[in-house]
Amino acid sequence: MNYKFSEIFRYIKPSEIRSLLKYTSDPELISFGGGMPNPESFPVEEMKEILADIMDNYGKKALQYGTTEGLDVLRDELAKYVLKTEGINAKREEIILTTGSQQALYAIAKIFVNPNDPVITEGPTYVGAISAFNANTANMMAIDIDENGMNVDELEAKIKELSQNGLKPKFIYVIPTFQNPAGTTMSLDRRKRLLEISERYEIPIVEDNPYGQLRYDGEPVQSIKSMDKNGNVIYLGTFSKVMAPGLRLGYVIAPREVIDKINLLKQGLDLASDSLSEYIAYEYLKRGAIYRQIPKTVDLYRKKRDLMIKSLEEYFPEAATWTKPHGGMFLWVSLDERIDTTKMLDRALKAKVAYVSGSAFYPHGEKHNSMRLNFTYSDDDKIVEGIKRLAYVINEEMEVVE
Amino acid sequence: MNYKFSEIFRYIKPSEIRSLLKYTSDPELISFGGGMPNPESFPVEEMKEILADIMDNYGKKALQYGTTEGLDVLRDELAKYVLKTEGINAKREEIILTTGSQQALYAIAKIFVNPNDPVITEGPTYVGAISAFNANTANMMAIDIDENGMNVDELEAKIKELSQNGLKPKFIYVIPTFQNPAGTTMSLDRRKRLLEISERYEIPIVEDNPYGQLRYDGEPVQSIKSMDKNGNVIYLGTFSKVMAPGLRLGYVIAPREVIDKINLLKQGLDLASDSLSEYIAYEYLKRGAIYRQIPKTVDLYRKKRDLMIKSLEEYFPEAATWTKPHGGMFLWVSLDERIDTTKMLDRALKAKVAYVSGSAFYPHGEKHNSMRLNFTYSDDDKIVEGIKRLAYVINEEMEVVE
Repeated sequence: MNYKFSEIFRYIKPSEIRSLLKYTSDPELISFGGGMPNPESFPVEEMKEILADIMDNYGKKALQYGTTEGLDVLRDELAKYVLKTEGINAKREEIILTTGSQQALYAIAKIFVNPNDPVITEGPTYVGAISAFNANTANMMAIDIDENGMNVDELEAKIKELSQNGLKPKFIYVIPTFQNPAGTTMSLDRRKRLLEISERYEIPIVEDNPYGQLRYDGEPVQSIKSMDKNGNVIYLGTFSKVMAPGLRLGYVIAPREVIDKINLLKQGLDLASDSLSEYIAYEYLKRGAIYRQIPKTVDLYRKKRDLMIKSLEEYFPEAATWTKPHGGMFLWVSLDERIDTTKMLDRALKAKVAYVSGSAFYPHGEKHNSMRLNFTYSDDDKIVEGIKRLAYVINEEMEVVE
Repeated sequence: MNYKFSEIFRYIKPSEIRSLLKYTSDPELISFGGGMPNPESFPVEEMKEILADIMDNYGKKALQYGTTEGLDVLRDELAKYVLKTEGINAKREEIILTTGSQQALYAIAKIFVNPNDPVITEGPTYVGAISAFNANTANMMAIDIDENGMNVDELEAKIKELSQNGLKPKFIYVIPTFQNPAGTTMSLDRRKRLLEISERYEIPIVEDNPYGQLRYDGEPVQSIKSMDKNGNVIYLGTFSKVMAPGLRLGYVIAPREVIDKINLLKQGLDLASDSLSEYIAYEYLKRGAIYRQIPKTVDLYRKKRDLMIKSLEEYFPEAATWTKPHGGMFLWVSLDERIDTTKMLDRALKAKVAYVSGSAFYPHGEKHNSMRLNFTYSDDDKIVEGIKRLAYVINEEMEVVE
């Protein structure tokens, strides 16, 4: 049989992160590549109790098909949670559960994007968003970010330029807090200006906030959704970083008409999310376990971030710079301009250390001299040893390019 | 904010089954509408043990991100299971886990279909397939089925007709065993001829087999995949009907190149399926619990099928006919030609009984005088009472149309 696949594979390419996974079975490899939470942050004991109670109290319901939008009582608990943690007011009907945030990203692209429609992202941005938007043949345009988040002047100039060609972006995708991959947080002033631009040009904002609760220092900045008076913001949350990523549960908060479209599409995508995982999330919120778990995770990750930064200061060459995130899971490192981190990856893997090269985070592969480092997953001694190895690799690579 | 959605919503329409769901909270309603397993068939006690063991033995792994293709050990157990139950030989690399069979249907359409490409289905066919194929802008063409399954002569004529216009179907989608909605089973002879046609014209077969293990009488018929020598068949299985549908787990068995494409797409769809559910399925297979559970479910459903058929014989008007399935979950009822079951549904809902009208199962809404009845979900007394109500509704409707 000679299979002929659809043209979508001109847009979808294997991601560097996923191809790194084949190396992860090597116990010698220290990987800063994946975006995995540390298993120490998983509430295993609490889960055991929750699971036993679920099976005793509503086992059959937790094993039956759920509704496409998700469990009513879970959506009610989520409304309380986002009000308390992010100042977001949402009714049950404005919330839909998704099979991870990844499904939310896919669905949002699918409900808005016709072939080749422009979509604005940050540059760099989340690889999973690139993958979801590519699968829906979006024409992505990346706007630079700095330590205060997306450059809103550049954004407005881009919107005007598109407008002169009769085009308008379908949405503006941002990860304003502890950005993936850069680790930066958008300032309150920029958030307000972004919302103004969204209102002025009638372009929805997709605010992705997987890391908001993982703050290690500094003061919280208001979510854009909490300032949204006119339903311009589509807000994405997830249980992956505050409960467990293996339970594939994310959620979208948006005006009812957007939720209805995602619902209609989700019926074709997977009918409904996992019922058992929805019941787990419901109990996890209702019991307040989430508020006991997050501070433990924050303490664990703060130490790891500090250790990685200390190691970078100690071992990395002087030409290298890196972000100092107040939260989240990632550092963004910029190296000497002559270095191409994609090419250098082979050398790194031989030295048994992995990262994701910066170009993976751009829709069209810019910033060849940068890399993303995850600081949450590795054990402390591995963080130090991995940064040492990476410093060695960079120094070797410098000798080649010099 | 004035939202402008993509053109996909010219193809995706709300499904009748999902809109019926809003009535299901009415405790007076007897619904033969949904395709839900009976909660009595769920292995709740076994699940409790399995969950406790999972958390004790590999809790952290079951809460961490899994791989896109799914747990290695689960895929190995699945290979044993499909060999034993369906005579299918499959290597681990030829299997991918999906978030329910629904995701498999969506992914298969997405990897093969360019806009408006022809796809062959049975007529009637599964609504979820119509939804997944519509979401990928397939041009569906339904081939009639009879008590021996798809009319393969009509199929070949359609392929030739398309070929004269330079067109070729991207795949042929069939549910050969205990078809949804018709309840019929494709004969061995037709299966062989279908495979020959697939090979002659180089058109893949998508064999969807959610109900194969739910056989109440008669002899098993070989799966098409078990006869497939040249990798023409893409086989879809699910845990929904033999374990629990709330755990969203299906699987695809196909040549490696097809699995690789689904994998690449799934990274954008939801990254990976639910890890905890994968571990549950693994333990459920490994312990042999599945082989203890299926006979119980078969006994439960056989009685319900017999009871529904007996009630139909007793209460339904003479002009009505229905299929007598050897397994699965559904009966297909044909009424007097003057009746439009879509129109009659309002009257049925007033009489507190629900079904899905036949036209929902055709890509372009044929067969106005038929309906699908689910016999697995309702309690025995509700089956009798519901059929009585429905007979009353049909008789009333006949008086109007006569």
